[in-house]
Amino acid sequence: MRGKTIIERPEILASTADDRGQIRQIILNSKLFQESDAECVESMFDLALARPTPDNYRFLSAWQNGTMVGFACYGWESLTHRTWDLFWVVTLPEARRQGIGGALLDEAVRIATVEGGRLMVIYTSSTGAYAAARKLYESRKFVRTAVVPEYYNRGDDLHIYSRRLQETL
Amino acid sequence: MRGKTIIERPEILASTADDRGQIRQIILNSKLFQESDAECVESMFDLALARPTPDNYRFLSAWQNGTMVGFACYGWESLTHRTWDLFWVVTLPEARRQGIGGALLDEAVRIATVEGGRLMVIYTSSTGAYAAARKLYESRKFVRTAVVPEYYNRGDDLHIYSRRLQETL
Repeated sequence: MRGKTIIERPEILASTADDRGQIRQIILNSKLFQESDAECVESMFDLALARPTPDNYRFLSAWQNGTMVGFACYGWESLTHRTWDLFWVVTLPEARRQGIGGALLDEAVRIATVEGGRLMVIYTSSTGAYAAARKLYESRKFVRTAVVPEYYNRGDDLHIYSRRLQETL
Repeated sequence: MRGKTIIERPEILASTADDRGQIRQIILNSKLFQESDAECVESMFDLALARPTPDNYRFLSAWQNGTMVGFACYGWESLTHRTWDLFWVVTLPEARRQGIGGALLDEAVRIATVEGGRLMVIYTSSTGAYAAARKLYESRKFVRTAVVPEYYNRGDDLHIYSRRLQETL
């Protein structure tokens, strides 16, 4: 029998100010996103830390073997009745297929549900690069409820996934 | 014959800092929105004025007979390829059915198209209070491309309208 590396179960924690640089690196190393995305996430991160109110963005960091390997950003969608939005779930390429995205998603769903969330929605792309992400959402009972053709670009539709929260507790 | 009030064609201008208070009043008097919406628009307005870059929110004010009677907020949707979003079109109840919403929408579409916009999207509610708004979007060749059930609340779906810009010039 070949030896098998022990892979720690990821630990999901609320992100702290110290995580900012690592979140940036995870985005830039994700092979899915680029500098403009990193800037977008950083501005959300700064807003979240500057004013940690219930209606602001929330960040979660995933830790494995002492390293930060992923993060999620989610929050209550303003102007809705208890609808939450999962804005980002990103893991490092070398840490994929180990349940980290799922653990981040589960924790976001758990907190949103505890805080009275009614619905969670996720916006994603129809392209092949996001196939694993879409599969992850579907594995967590998110249903693709809407498609906006060519939203991101020609040949790149917006897929909206949603999941009712209270009844899945 | 009875006399007929002359109704001026509305004038649509880029909003200035002086319009902030009137935008707030238009929201609060709209019979559609409330204080939390006003705060949301004000924070978008402050962001727009603080940094008037191409990727920031834009505001238009509609003037009629020397009074501000409506406004629109729109802008380029970050992380998309030339997709624009119409966030708000609001007119005072007493100024409705006079083409003001249409004039605001037309001007937002015109500017987005001139600046190379590919697609414009509008997010709105399925409820009766927004029937006139949906009719307005449809009159301007926006097509309802997606529905997210119960997005805003139980019995209150998200309707997404979109329109290709370049080919409608």
